[in-house]
Amino acid sequence: MDFVNDVIAWKRDGHELDAGRLRAFVDGVVDGSVPSYQASALLMAMVLQGLSDGETLELARALVESGKMLDLSVVRRPVLDKHSSGGVGDKVTLVLAPLVAACGAVFGKMSGRGLGHTGGTVDKLESIPGFRVQLPQGEFVRQLERIGVAVVSQSERIVPADRILYALRDVTATIECDGLIAASIMAKKVASGTSALVLDVKVGRGAFMGDLGHARNLGRLCRLIGDAYDRPTTCIFTSMEAPLGRTVGNRLEVEEAWQVLGGEGPDDVREVTLTLAGALLALSDLGVDEPEGRRLAAAALDDGRAAEHFERWCFVQGGRWKPGEFHRLAAHEARAARAGYVTRVDALAVGQAAQIAGAGRRRIDDTVDPAAGVVLQRAVGDQVEAGDPLAAVFSRDPARRAQASAVLDRVFSVGDKRPQPGPLVLGRIEAEE
Amino acid sequence: MDFVNDVIAWKRDGHELDAGRLRAFVDGVVDGSVPSYQASALLMAMVLQGLSDGETLELARALVESGKMLDLSVVRRPVLDKHSSGGVGDKVTLVLAPLVAACGAVFGKMSGRGLGHTGGTVDKLESIPGFRVQLPQGEFVRQLERIGVAVVSQSERIVPADRILYALRDVTATIECDGLIAASIMAKKVASGTSALVLDVKVGRGAFMGDLGHARNLGRLCRLIGDAYDRPTTCIFTSMEAPLGRTVGNRLEVEEAWQVLGGEGPDDVREVTLTLAGALLALSDLGVDEPEGRRLAAAALDDGRAAEHFERWCFVQGGRWKPGEFHRLAAHEARAARAGYVTRVDALAVGQAAQIAGAGRRRIDDTVDPAAGVVLQRAVGDQVEAGDPLAAVFSRDPARRAQASAVLDRVFSVGDKRPQPGPLVLGRIEAEE
Repeated sequence: MDFVNDVIAWKRDGHELDAGRLRAFVDGVVDGSVPSYQASALLMAMVLQGLSDGETLELARALVESGKMLDLSVVRRPVLDKHSSGGVGDKVTLVLAPLVAACGAVFGKMSGRGLGHTGGTVDKLESIPGFRVQLPQGEFVRQLERIGVAVVSQSERIVPADRILYALRDVTATIECDGLIAASIMAKKVASGTSALVLDVKVGRGAFMGDLGHARNLGRLCRLIGDAYDRPTTCIFTSMEAPLGRTVGNRLEVEEAWQVLGGEGPDDVREVTLTLAGALLALSDLGVDEPEGRRLAAAALDDGRAAEHFERWCFVQGGRWKPGEFHRLAAHEARAARAGYVTRVDALAVGQAAQIAGAGRRRIDDTVDPAAGVVLQRAVGDQVEAGDPLAAVFSRDPARRAQASAVLDRVFSVGDKRPQPGPLVLGRIEAEE
Repeated sequence: MDFVNDVIAWKRDGHELDAGRLRAFVDGVVDGSVPSYQASALLMAMVLQGLSDGETLELARALVESGKMLDLSVVRRPVLDKHSSGGVGDKVTLVLAPLVAACGAVFGKMSGRGLGHTGGTVDKLESIPGFRVQLPQGEFVRQLERIGVAVVSQSERIVPADRILYALRDVTATIECDGLIAASIMAKKVASGTSALVLDVKVGRGAFMGDLGHARNLGRLCRLIGDAYDRPTTCIFTSMEAPLGRTVGNRLEVEEAWQVLGGEGPDDVREVTLTLAGALLALSDLGVDEPEGRRLAAAALDDGRAAEHFERWCFVQGGRWKPGEFHRLAAHEARAARAGYVTRVDALAVGQAAQIAGAGRRRIDDTVDPAAGVVLQRAVGDQVEAGDPLAAVFSRDPARRAQASAVLDRVFSVGDKRPQPGPLVLGRIEAEE
């Protein structure tokens, strides 16, 4: 019986792992002395026995200390960040980042590529020709000082243990553990120098969390870690039953974000963006409360400053932004089989169609097609006639397009009664100031 | 999400794995397409969610079919075997194998080396100079026909999946699952051609199973697999609070087995041997019931036929058996601190002392020292004076001897009242005929 075997047995039997054991595990994963088969056995024991609040916090600490910690104090102002637990059509960061900067605060983000129905924020930004998502640290800092906004891809030196563990969790059915998820999210935020965070926890069919109770626990754990590191963290729970906005796909979402930045675009994207912007600005050094922050943000969307800041951001980070100028792929349309009201748009199915079309990754080394995705022509509550177009899927590959179309055909439910719209913002946990 | 990931998730969520999924897993482990980190995650999910009877049976089938199946029908008589779940000082196979043959039945065994406080039966036999534990299959069969007894080391081609999985379970804290244990034991018996089996499930401090209820479940599962393959299996539950007999160590145990074969030696070893012999002979083609079988066996121990058969067996399998002729190692003695009655001899501590002395393996590639081990000079119920010798530990290495002595000093409890002896045979599950 070696030490790691004993650690695994300890967790298997439902006992609590102390800081020393968690650190030995994480350090061993990074230096290779804990082989992957022992790591995955321990991860499964963690998933099935759960992690206590104390274990979650100590795991986060061990992850943070597994790599380099970025010091953004040179910026001399709070660097705000927003993290989404992942939803379908979630392009909010694309709007929020320049919006917060346009309001006078500083937004800095290191973003992973990850797996999912579409790429991550960095994949979306890369759909803009020339946009550089890898910046040297000094340039990242200077850009934050100069224009108040920078979004780059996660450095490999930040929380290296998380990258190894996440890849292992992805193939061993050990993703689903609130403590593991919270430690993974928050360790990366702490290590990459975030001063204050708003966490958008998505709840519903298109999200990782199916119910609000579960989402609240994840939010609570993230807040706990944020508090321990003195990084104020506000959690906002938002609905992910239907996709957010009308587009799902990397470049398609940038185009929609551009509309929202100009004071237009779908109401739901604007509403979630303003809610998160209010919460973020209240955590900034601008001395505003949340309603004031929200009003500032709405004004910046409506008077053109947000869009202007987005253009400036693209320019500084190398992107040649020309709205509407991208390669249009062949489409397949889904049409209404009957007349009535749209009662449901299944976010999960939309996401799957977009992923099949080429917008997302199934494996970490898949490439994403910037132009692939889904555009929704109708939303929940809209009245339709039989034969009306409901949605279109765009894909480079005819076989993928056909396969995605078959999924798209299951997305819409049409009924006789106009449905009551559900709330978009489901709850929140305020950061302690 | 690949197929194996889905299989792991299915078990993680408490669902039942069907034959196809179990087979894909086992086959993938053997052909290398299922990496060890996925295998260990699934094993941990099995340990924590448990395996149903159906899963246990299908897992055993998949294990059996992962390699070669030995056909012993050429022997034209039932080939009997006995398996012990593992105890301290358990030398019963050394007596039982020639005893069953001396009574006119056929005993054939493929035995693993395994990990433990002492070596396995093949390690014990190898403490006899020249004893060959690797025989070609034809020679194994001819020896069974000629003298009715053969014990060899497990062929690598029998249940290769079990060897891989066992090595993985050993380092990932996933040994403890009745279904995994039963499938592992029985698959090897079925694949190595055993016609009928007696399983000696050890219960108590020196055994893997601490309580009878747990042991009964393991026995029940083994019987279930035996029934499915039409290999009658009787389970006998015996006590392992104190070590069996007075010796723990490879050659030391052969010497004690020799005494029992000659109608002498410790009562407990003789009693367990006769109980198992009766049960085994009742499963043979001799047409005897269990009490008759036991009487036949007792007579063979007492009239010299069993000892004679042991000598013949050693000769045929290459061993130069000379009782008492082995290298005697330096010893350290444990002595009674006070006068009174021995109330307890801690089997686990005796086993640990023997292992430290060099009698057993901690890792699969450790070598065992044939002459190392422990000799107990007193048993539970014996009266002792302060300073009386209680036990001696033999080791080649002074440092190991000192370390083992410190463990040995904790083995004996001495009290004022003579303890009531507990039963040796705790229960049984009869084979269906």
